[in-house]
Amino acid sequence: MQKEEGEMGGGAEAQMEMVGKAFVKHYYGLFDAGSRPALAGLYHPSTSILSFEGRRFDGADSIGRHLSQLPFDLCRHMVATVDCQGSPFAAGGILVFVTGSLQLSGEEHSLSFSQMFQLVQSTEGRFYVQNDIFRLNYG
Amino acid sequence: MQKEEGEMGGGAEAQMEMVGKAFVKHYYGLFDAGSRPALAGLYHPSTSILSFEGRRFDGADSIGRHLSQLPFDLCRHMVATVDCQGSPFAAGGILVFVTGSLQLSGEEHSLSFSQMFQLVQSTEGRFYVQNDIFRLNYG
Repeated sequence: MQKEEGEMGGGAEAQMEMVGKAFVKHYYGLFDAGSRPALAGLYHPSTSILSFEGRRFDGADSIGRHLSQLPFDLCRHMVATVDCQGSPFAAGGILVFVTGSLQLSGEEHSLSFSQMFQLVQSTEGRFYVQNDIFRLNYG
Repeated sequence: MQKEEGEMGGGAEAQMEMVGKAFVKHYYGLFDAGSRPALAGLYHPSTSILSFEGRRFDGADSIGRHLSQLPFDLCRHMVATVDCQGSPFAAGGILVFVTGSLQLSGEEHSLSFSQMFQLVQSTEGRFYVQNDIFRLNYG
């Protein structure tokens, strides 16, 4: 994702909301299209952190490998809510909070999940995922 | 919450985990003890942001007022999971991600929720809530 200069005029909050929602669409789009290996490219090679159901992975390679090797072929995320907030201490940082449900192929019932991302901008102006925390919601 | 210097020796991650979990206990402790007005003191007077079920509140006063005026007397949070990650662009920043359920007084069924906080340190070394996003999970 490249941030376009012309988009800054619409207010910082509207801009963040737009970037956050575009990211969510892109992320789950890749995930659900069976392109999970490509997700690694959205993380920073060394600094990114994923907490996935309590297990921690550091750096794009490790994160991408974990996401690629999840024990199912296809799944479908149904996003219910997306909330975005500025993370003022990170240059262009955006906190993105998602709730929804996901349907694994071959499973009858969908699972409720929530996930948060912190998106930050590289020196080249591209957003990457610095922080990612995923949990299924039970109960 | 005051960060004690002696605690830094145990590794940055263990330290963050400890601060994050202590915060969660403190926060829902106040909330569930009917001390919701006191929650305002955990936020920054001007920079803190709360997104509560899609509604946005800025600054400690506005956030505290909203939390105090939620339309129920007592509730009980049952925390299922707490995940913590460093937010490397904020001095001492900690992302805290909580899932669980909550039981409102007089209601038969509990509600599933998820919530994230970004804790940051003031120049005096005290943690406050910079970002707070709360959602009930349906489905």
